[in-house]
Amino acid sequence: MRLSRYFLPLLKETPKEAEIVSHQLMLRAGMIKQQAAGSYSWLPLGFKVLNKIIRIIEEEQNRSGAVQLLMPTIQSADLWKESGRYDAYGKEMLRLEDRHEREMLFGPTNEEMITDIFRTYVKSYKDLPLNLYHIQWKFRDEVRPRFGTMRSREFLMKDAYSFDLDEAGATQAFYRMFVAYLRTFHRMGLVGVPMRADAGPIGGDLSYEFHVLAETGESAVFLDKRLVDKPIPAIDTDFRSDLTSIFKDWTSLFAATDEMTDEAGFKAAVEPEHQLAARGIEVGHIFFFGTKYSKPMKATVTSQEGQAVEVQMGSYGIGPTRLVPAIIEASHDDAGIIWPVSVAPFEAVVINLKVGDAESDRASERLYDNLTREGIDVLLDDRDQGAGGKFAAADLIGIPYQLIVGPRGLKDGVVEIKHRKSGERETLSIEEAVGRLKSLIVPQRRDSV
Amino acid sequence: MRLSRYFLPLLKETPKEAEIVSHQLMLRAGMIKQQAAGSYSWLPLGFKVLNKIIRIIEEEQNRSGAVQLLMPTIQSADLWKESGRYDAYGKEMLRLEDRHEREMLFGPTNEEMITDIFRTYVKSYKDLPLNLYHIQWKFRDEVRPRFGTMRSREFLMKDAYSFDLDEAGATQAFYRMFVAYLRTFHRMGLVGVPMRADAGPIGGDLSYEFHVLAETGESAVFLDKRLVDKPIPAIDTDFRSDLTSIFKDWTSLFAATDEMTDEAGFKAAVEPEHQLAARGIEVGHIFFFGTKYSKPMKATVTSQEGQAVEVQMGSYGIGPTRLVPAIIEASHDDAGIIWPVSVAPFEAVVINLKVGDAESDRASERLYDNLTREGIDVLLDDRDQGAGGKFAAADLIGIPYQLIVGPRGLKDGVVEIKHRKSGERETLSIEEAVGRLKSLIVPQRRDSV
Repeated sequence: MRLSRYFLPLLKETPKEAEIVSHQLMLRAGMIKQQAAGSYSWLPLGFKVLNKIIRIIEEEQNRSGAVQLLMPTIQSADLWKESGRYDAYGKEMLRLEDRHEREMLFGPTNEEMITDIFRTYVKSYKDLPLNLYHIQWKFRDEVRPRFGTMRSREFLMKDAYSFDLDEAGATQAFYRMFVAYLRTFHRMGLVGVPMRADAGPIGGDLSYEFHVLAETGESAVFLDKRLVDKPIPAIDTDFRSDLTSIFKDWTSLFAATDEMTDEAGFKAAVEPEHQLAARGIEVGHIFFFGTKYSKPMKATVTSQEGQAVEVQMGSYGIGPTRLVPAIIEASHDDAGIIWPVSVAPFEAVVINLKVGDAESDRASERLYDNLTREGIDVLLDDRDQGAGGKFAAADLIGIPYQLIVGPRGLKDGVVEIKHRKSGERETLSIEEAVGRLKSLIVPQRRDSV
Repeated sequence: MRLSRYFLPLLKETPKEAEIVSHQLMLRAGMIKQQAAGSYSWLPLGFKVLNKIIRIIEEEQNRSGAVQLLMPTIQSADLWKESGRYDAYGKEMLRLEDRHEREMLFGPTNEEMITDIFRTYVKSYKDLPLNLYHIQWKFRDEVRPRFGTMRSREFLMKDAYSFDLDEAGATQAFYRMFVAYLRTFHRMGLVGVPMRADAGPIGGDLSYEFHVLAETGESAVFLDKRLVDKPIPAIDTDFRSDLTSIFKDWTSLFAATDEMTDEAGFKAAVEPEHQLAARGIEVGHIFFFGTKYSKPMKATVTSQEGQAVEVQMGSYGIGPTRLVPAIIEASHDDAGIIWPVSVAPFEAVVINLKVGDAESDRASERLYDNLTREGIDVLLDDRDQGAGGKFAAADLIGIPYQLIVGPRGLKDGVVEIKHRKSGERETLSIEEAVGRLKSLIVPQRRDSV
């Protein structure tokens, strides 16, 4: 992409309304624009990051055996009356009436609708296990939306729903999502730690939140620090096999938010040398809830013995529009965002220091073309602007590698690569530049898969 | 994808509520489920087709220089009061109030919001031309939604908006979309004919609808039949160049819906041997409207002479959720859907005629693995069912190539390929099958790009 033909409205000043660093940086980097309280447009740079996050989520959901579909945003109130949640949900639900005065709502979640889809088509235990997911806009009318897309009213959610004949099956379904989530967050360059969460009236131990560690996180979290470097399940994990041991292995180490433990409990449970008190951002929640919806909504299958059995269900959420700021909270410095390669809006930026200089233009264009041809997702800063502004912009929007091309270096046949994260700089010949960038970028992509 | 692990709820009976063939087939093929009047879930097979259509639209929009972003579904009423459309829009607009009793609405279109984005950031003629688009759910509360996703209330729309300094620039922006649309519909296997449409109070000749020719189309269309086979602009069309000649070339041949002409006018305008009276489905509309929104909303840029100039705008819509049934209307037979390769949910299906037979299972699995490895998007019918049901299912869901594997053929080392469209069958050795399928499928993909 040529920056001169792109739409990247960078802000010089930090907007006053933004309280946290990710919100500030997303506004300054031209990633989002507020449209109403808790409602945002995703400008091109932000949209591109959001899409890369969505692709990773989809790949890991599909790998685990979940099947993607798409439910509408507007739902009929009737389904919610069947489950009993229409009255219970309160003011967070955005209720509306259509022209025929039928009661409708903007879906805050989809347990009812997916249960309706299930009961319409699935009749036999032979069609289980089944896990259906979608990625769709939700609306929750929070009293005080804030922190940009970290806590917005209209937000994107990946919600998966598992259906099993019995609790043993549902437990394995839960473990599959547990493993998929470990892989998902890791691929985005995050440390995503599963933490036992409140299971509500259902009880049991199948309710886990995933928290990303970030100094600016909203909740206090307490964990065994060995969880931070724990190798995640490999790409060839067999999701058809029994995953109990992976789940046990991960959950045998202590990890809890301040809602589930206090410092005293934490210090009693973990040896001093392994204690890590940190801050976390909740980015996912996986949850088994048995027959909570299948019972009132009569979602049954015929068992092998010919009996009607209410299916055992679980739900599994990830917030893509929240992951964008979460990654920024976990990875930035004073100059701006530092994207991991896997979710970076562009993997590299070619900075033409002197637009209008024939040599500099020619070299920049050639490098841009060659990088594009090698499959690198690259931005060309071809704006007629000073070098200082270009460096600041590249740092702000957080592109992992900057390829700096200017008349001075070209005289000696060299260009410079700046690593955004480490600040490291390499001077190398024009001929070497594309190969070097490829050798830096491709392994990070591969590690992330 | 293994069908045994997929979610493909096929219906035996044609649902009574479905009046047109695409609606019937989409329900029977397990592509959609109605959730409320004019509101549908996209089940996995339908979702996959929808996504392939979206990818083609995105590729052609990007190629033409348009830049993608994403605006929210819920909009504040304030913007619509600025443009004057809040009162004018009537009952089709889904209006609602949030918990603080602020007036909101579910966006039926986005002229106001994109103009707001533009005026917030763009101040100079130097930042023009600009074309911003998004693909987002819209809601129009039609009195009588019908024909499935052909005319639903919640539907997906690609809407692009161009911004130019003057009418000459806006005209070229219009031509770029004109060319992008020709390419977009062609790549989906459709004959998409541009037809002069009512320009409304703006006047001028920059309002074109694109109609897909299909026997079951909703409107009568009259055209010069040379438009049907007219070669579309090539992939290497330079969208930075003057596109007037392409536009003139296409629009010099007669094409109009019955809203813009009648049979007498048509017969007077076109020589008898070139006359084609047919049926069409509107799948896109491109439209220049000047300063209709920039004027009331004060979207101006500073011109080269330092003056504030209201920008010249156009809007460009395509309905992906309508294209799915439109393609089916244009391409089906008594047995079911016939997908063009470019939008087929799967490019090929391996039909294992005898699940449980060791030889048949082994050969099917190996062919499935090899096709997957070769990058073919393939479905494996590994359900424990009779051959008749499998053949009927493969025909119904319209997969372009069926690879039929059974014990009888395997005894002689052969399998069979059935071409869905022509019905043609080839018997060939197992070793040849993968290469043959690849040689059938890949060129169709390439032609489509």
